[in-house]
Amino acid sequence: MDKYYYGYEEFLQDIRSLHKQIREYQPDTLLAIARGGLTMGHFLANAMDTRRLFALNSIHYEGNRKLDTLEIFNIPDLSDAKKVLLLDDIADSGETLLAVLHRLEELYPEVEFKVATLFYKPDSLIQPDFMIKEAPAWIDFFWEIDPL
Amino acid sequence: MDKYYYGYEEFLQDIRSLHKQIREYQPDTLLAIARGGLTMGHFLANAMDTRRLFALNSIHYEGNRKLDTLEIFNIPDLSDAKKVLLLDDIADSGETLLAVLHRLEELYPEVEFKVATLFYKPDSLIQPDFMIKEAPAWIDFFWEIDPL
Repeated sequence: MDKYYYGYEEFLQDIRSLHKQIREYQPDTLLAIARGGLTMGHFLANAMDTRRLFALNSIHYEGNRKLDTLEIFNIPDLSDAKKVLLLDDIADSGETLLAVLHRLEELYPEVEFKVATLFYKPDSLIQPDFMIKEAPAWIDFFWEIDPL
Repeated sequence: MDKYYYGYEEFLQDIRSLHKQIREYQPDTLLAIARGGLTMGHFLANAMDTRRLFALNSIHYEGNRKLDTLEIFNIPDLSDAKKVLLLDDIADSGETLLAVLHRLEELYPEVEFKVATLFYKPDSLIQPDFMIKEAPAWIDFFWEIDPL
């Protein structure tokens, strides 16, 4: 499979575009899904000059089809939030984003949640409210590849 | 005051050095202080191939001397951790790191905590267990400057 290297300079352009898109929405809280959403969350929070950047963990354990489990934990306290922007690097199958969104909406029915990603796949179960571009088949994100 | 621009390429070298230092310690959990520790946490977690990268929030509200307050919140569940590496970009005054460390040690007396930073100041209240270099007077981190 062709691998696409997603580098720092391209990311920086995308963050600037995403920031422009998001600015109008004015979320009061950014919530990054670890690990994929953390670097973009850090950059966006600085661009937006907000310290309300929180994180949660979502780990997908792959087994056979029946044993696949998605664990969502370390959900931050959102009791004083009104508009939360959920961040992840990619809406791939969309399963994780959808599950996280459902859990958050259950816990905080009065909070409005929107989703922002850098990449999306057209057949994702969820289409982000804010997104930059369609994903190639396989992406090597610089935060995965460069530290090695 | 002279400003020092800390760019992506220098960061990448530092992450590789920090990863080598940390490898021997083998923490089971990385805990990034938001926002400063998030990008480095993301890179280190990928280098170490661990998904146990958590985050907490620490916000320093500056008032007059008596009204200075440090809020520490969204502390993740560390009940199944044994060796936690706390991450921040810089040990500056060291006040935040020390306060976070004390809170964590109170909550989880059986967990071993160590601290890793990219930069440190010699007069910081806390000297990190792992660190890369002495801090210039003022650092413009690329995650702060580049998205603007």
